[in-house]
Amino acid sequence: MTYSSTDQIAQQLAFLVELDKLKSIMRQSPLIDQSRKENSAEHSWHLGMFALVLSAHAKEVDTLHVVKLLLVHDIVEIDAGDHPLHSASGQAALIEAAERRAAERIFGLLPEQQGREMLDLWCEFEAAQTPEAIFAKALDRLQPLLINTLSNGGTWAENGVTRQQVMERYGPVIERGSPVLWEVASQCVSDYFAKAQTGK
Amino acid sequence: MTYSSTDQIAQQLAFLVELDKLKSIMRQSPLIDQSRKENSAEHSWHLGMFALVLSAHAKEVDTLHVVKLLLVHDIVEIDAGDHPLHSASGQAALIEAAERRAAERIFGLLPEQQGREMLDLWCEFEAAQTPEAIFAKALDRLQPLLINTLSNGGTWAENGVTRQQVMERYGPVIERGSPVLWEVASQCVSDYFAKAQTGK
Repeated sequence: MTYSSTDQIAQQLAFLVELDKLKSIMRQSPLIDQSRKENSAEHSWHLGMFALVLSAHAKEVDTLHVVKLLLVHDIVEIDAGDHPLHSASGQAALIEAAERRAAERIFGLLPEQQGREMLDLWCEFEAAQTPEAIFAKALDRLQPLLINTLSNGGTWAENGVTRQQVMERYGPVIERGSPVLWEVASQCVSDYFAKAQTGK
Repeated sequence: MTYSSTDQIAQQLAFLVELDKLKSIMRQSPLIDQSRKENSAEHSWHLGMFALVLSAHAKEVDTLHVVKLLLVHDIVEIDAGDHPLHSASGQAALIEAAERRAAERIFGLLPEQQGREMLDLWCEFEAAQTPEAIFAKALDRLQPLLINTLSNGGTWAENGVTRQQVMERYGPVIERGSPVLWEVASQCVSDYFAKAQTGK
């Protein structure tokens, strides 16, 4: 598709303008220098770079496809907000429904076929079944893990999360995407908790 | 290259950790809601999305390559800072040298071959000679143009930039990457200045 009519270009620009709002969606994770919390737009850029740098550690993935999944994966938060890993809200079904409505509204701003393609990318990421989505999910866990180990525990310290909980909540997702990255990441976790304990 | 040794993975993670600093590099452009200025990391994400959505409007480009150029293009600002389009500092050579040193230091954190590949991407963007770099440069002008038309003039209003200056500073770069996008963008500019004049 070329999307070359003026109307189609206007729809594309309206979508891109709407995306500006993701810069105001705050996550629970801090920046590494702890000056403030991270927002979902800059988080998505960071993950795009994780994909470009680390994709050789996945089994066999199409790098462009991993990058697409990661650039798109948080857009629904513009309407549905961010839902941190360590909050036990018990509202998974409600959140899922709100995110689905958000995806339909926001990707619906695009020309129809392109909107459907974006919706498919988001659904693919959420389902975590393709090699690309499995790896993208792993990176989406690896990035805050690294940040937490380098910012006095970040969301772990804030939520009283133990070493064992970290291993359980991050391990399976990262290891499924890349065993070698989990090997390195789990060492970072062990080092962090050993140091945190000594510091007390 | 697989970069599978523990040392190489450690280098890759050190690079990705360093990139966190781009989230604290502030640009002159505001968010569209004018709540604050935009930072270079979220700007880079926004441009990645511009590339995914608009690449059919370039002549013939490899979309992954355009996305790579845009995700990487501002990383040098971690050391060299952001240099706005409308500041007439007359220090182009100094800035260029500082950015070159920054590129060598930051991409030098990676395993050697991967660092060279990233440095090549940044040089390619700066040189603006390949179809992908020409289109990436066009998007890097289109995004702040759109933001300015939607945020009471943004950096144009702040710097007293006229309609003619906008046409001269943005037109050739956007038109070179995509005549049809410039057609739509120049109409947005005309509409903005017409409305701004009526509002006075």
